[in-house]
Amino acid sequence: MNNFTFQNATKIIFGKDTEQLVGKETALHSKKVLLHYGGGSIKQSGLYDTVVQSLQENGVEFVELGGVKPNPRVSLVREGVALCKEQNIDFILAVGGGSVIDSAKGIAAGAKYEGDVWDFYTGTPIETSLPIGVVLTIPAAGSESSAGSVITNEDGWLKRDALHDSLRPQFAILNPVLSYTLPAYQTACGITDMMSHILERYFTTEKNVDFTDRLCEGALKSIIHNAPIVLEQPTNYDARAEIMWAGTIAHNDLLGTGRTGDWASHNIEHEISGIYDIAHGAGLAIIFPAWMKYVYKHDVQRFAQFANRVWNVEIDLNDLERTALAGIKKTEEFFQSIGMPITLSEANIDDQYFREMARKATERWPIGNFVKLHEEDVYNIYVLAK
Amino acid sequence: MNNFTFQNATKIIFGKDTEQLVGKETALHSKKVLLHYGGGSIKQSGLYDTVVQSLQENGVEFVELGGVKPNPRVSLVREGVALCKEQNIDFILAVGGGSVIDSAKGIAAGAKYEGDVWDFYTGTPIETSLPIGVVLTIPAAGSESSAGSVITNEDGWLKRDALHDSLRPQFAILNPVLSYTLPAYQTACGITDMMSHILERYFTTEKNVDFTDRLCEGALKSIIHNAPIVLEQPTNYDARAEIMWAGTIAHNDLLGTGRTGDWASHNIEHEISGIYDIAHGAGLAIIFPAWMKYVYKHDVQRFAQFANRVWNVEIDLNDLERTALAGIKKTEEFFQSIGMPITLSEANIDDQYFREMARKATERWPIGNFVKLHEEDVYNIYVLAK
Repeated sequence: MNNFTFQNATKIIFGKDTEQLVGKETALHSKKVLLHYGGGSIKQSGLYDTVVQSLQENGVEFVELGGVKPNPRVSLVREGVALCKEQNIDFILAVGGGSVIDSAKGIAAGAKYEGDVWDFYTGTPIETSLPIGVVLTIPAAGSESSAGSVITNEDGWLKRDALHDSLRPQFAILNPVLSYTLPAYQTACGITDMMSHILERYFTTEKNVDFTDRLCEGALKSIIHNAPIVLEQPTNYDARAEIMWAGTIAHNDLLGTGRTGDWASHNIEHEISGIYDIAHGAGLAIIFPAWMKYVYKHDVQRFAQFANRVWNVEIDLNDLERTALAGIKKTEEFFQSIGMPITLSEANIDDQYFREMARKATERWPIGNFVKLHEEDVYNIYVLAK
Repeated sequence: MNNFTFQNATKIIFGKDTEQLVGKETALHSKKVLLHYGGGSIKQSGLYDTVVQSLQENGVEFVELGGVKPNPRVSLVREGVALCKEQNIDFILAVGGGSVIDSAKGIAAGAKYEGDVWDFYTGTPIETSLPIGVVLTIPAAGSESSAGSVITNEDGWLKRDALHDSLRPQFAILNPVLSYTLPAYQTACGITDMMSHILERYFTTEKNVDFTDRLCEGALKSIIHNAPIVLEQPTNYDARAEIMWAGTIAHNDLLGTGRTGDWASHNIEHEISGIYDIAHGAGLAIIFPAWMKYVYKHDVQRFAQFANRVWNVEIDLNDLERTALAGIKKTEEFFQSIGMPITLSEANIDDQYFREMARKATERWPIGNFVKLHEEDVYNIYVLAK
C-alpha cells in the first residue's frame, strides 16, 4: 500500500426533501452567492423555485448564471469569473449535475486569480478558490465531493482537468427524488461514469491493496445490482438512493487510498467528447472495455480477480486469461444491457480523427499508470473500439 | 435508506515514517499542547522521542500527561481538564491507542466546560471541545476519526460514552509499523473490536441498504483475510496496513450512512469491562456471538446474507435458518481462531454479577435497535455467553 493523505470534509446531506435545507446551509458560508445552473430542467421540475425560496428565506442574496452545457465550456466559466469579481460574490452554489458543478469549480478558482482561468487546466496549480455548495440532480460525475473539475476549451476543443482540495464543495445536498426525471439514457451514462471512477482506481499496479479492492468490488456489485432496477423503475426511491450515494463514494477518493489509479481511459475518452460532444459516460462505455482488452495481459491475475469477485466468473486456474477475458466481456455486456453504445461506430464516430485524438491525448506526457500509453497505444485503443 | 448527514473532516496521514510529521501538523493548530499517552510502551519503542523531537523542531510547547490505562478512567480525564485550564492549553495530542484517544477526547470536551466532565457521559450534550490530534499505535477502536469517547467512572464502575462531532480529531497519523510490536492477544482484540464496529452497523432493520451492506461485507472480508497474516507475521507491513486502515473506516461512520446501527453488544460488553477490566475486544468476542444467537430469528434473511457473503456459506433456500446459524458459528470459530475467548468462563467471569450488569446496561432505556433489549434479555445473553 502506498503512503497517502486523505481528507474529504464535504458535508453530505442526503435524503428526501433535503433541498429545502439549501438556504440554511448556504447562509452558514455567505450572504451573496452566484447561483449556477444548466438549462431549463431545474425550472420545469420546480427545483429552481425551491432553491430560490430557501435562499430568500435565509437572507441569502444571489446573482444568477445559467446555461451550463454538458462538457462545460471555458467561455461560460470566464463569464462567471467576471461576474463574481464585479459583484463581490464569495460563494458559488451549483444546482445540477457534474457539468454544472465542474463549471462552478472553474468559476470558484478563477474568481480568486488574476490571470485567465484556463491556466489552471493547462498546468498552473490552483492555490485557493471560493467555497462551493451543491444541490445534485444527476448521480454520475462524483464532482459533488471530489477535488477535480473538467472543462472544455472551444478554442481547439481541448477537454482538460484541474485538481485542488479547495475545489471540494463545502456541502452537497443529495436527494434521490431529484433524479427520478432523468431519462434512461442519462441515467445509464451516469452509472457508467461512476463505475469507471471505481475501475480507474481498481486497475493499479500496487500489489497489496486488499481492503480497498474489497470496497471497490462491493461498490461495483451494488451499482450493477441497482442499475437495472432504476432503469425499469425510475421512481424507485431505494434504488435511486443506492445509485446516488454510490456515485459520490466512487469519486470522493476513499476507494483510491493507498493505490495509484490508472485514468488513461478518462483521458482517451476526453478527446472523443471534446470533439464530438458525446456524453462522457457513453464514451467511457466504449473506451473502457477496449482499454481492458489492450492492457489485461500486464496483470492477468488482477483481471481474473475482477472477473471473479465482481462478475461471479468462476476462476479457471488452468487458464487465468480465459477468466480475465470473461470479466471484460461481462463488463461490455453490462454496459450494452443498460443501453450504452460499446463501439465508436454505434455512436456514429468514424476513424477520421483517431490520429489527432491520439496525439492530443498524449501531447503532454504518456497517459495511464497501470500501463503507460503512448500515442500509438492510444491510437490502437481507438481502433479496438471502432 | 434513512436520510442522513455525513461529514468526517479528519485528515488521515497514512504510511511509513508519517509520525515524523506530527510536529508540523500540530503546529498548524497550536503552539501549546497537552501530550497525552499511556504507559511506558511509547518510550520503549522510541515513538515518544520522535514525537517530542518533532514538536520541538516545530516550536510546539507541550505539557505531558501519561498514565492512561485500558478502559480509561474519568479521574485522569479530570486531571487533564484541570491541567488544560491552568496552563491555557488549546490542543490535545494523543499518542497511543483507543484508550488514550478516548481519554484525550474527554479532556478536550471538559476543558471547554465549567461543570464536571462526567456530565457528558451521562446525557449532557457536548457543545464544543478543544481540537485533538492523534498518533495511533493500536488499530482497534477507530477513535482516531470517530466522534465518540468511552470513559469509565471508578465510582460505581460505570463505563459510558459521549458523542459529538467536535470530538473528531483534526488529524490522525497512522503508521502501520507502529503496530508491529503489539502482542498477538492485543492485535486480536483490536481486530475483534473493528469487526464489531462493522457488525453493529450491519445488523439493522433498515431494508434497502445494499450499497453500505456491500461495503461492510467487503471490509469484513478483508479483515478476516488479513487477521491470520498479522498474527503469523507481526512485521508484515502490508497486512498491518490493511488492518490499520480497516480499523479507521470501520468506525468513521461511512459504513453506517443511511442505516440505524444496533449497538446493544457494545453496551452489554461495556458492563463486563466496566467491572472486570477485560479487554473490550475480548469482551466483544464473547458477547457478539451470544447476541447473534439471541436475536437472529428477528431477521433470518439478513443473517443468511451475512453467512453467505461474508463467510461463503452456501445459501440453503429450504432452510435459511440453517444458513444463518452457520454464519454465527463461523463468526464464533473465527474469534476463537485468532485467540479470543468466546465464553465468559474462558475469561474467568462467573454469573455473580449477571443480574447487576443486566440492570445497569438497561437502567436508562432498553438497548439495541435491531431488537430492543430489556433487562431480562440482557441477562439471557449473559447466560448464553456463560
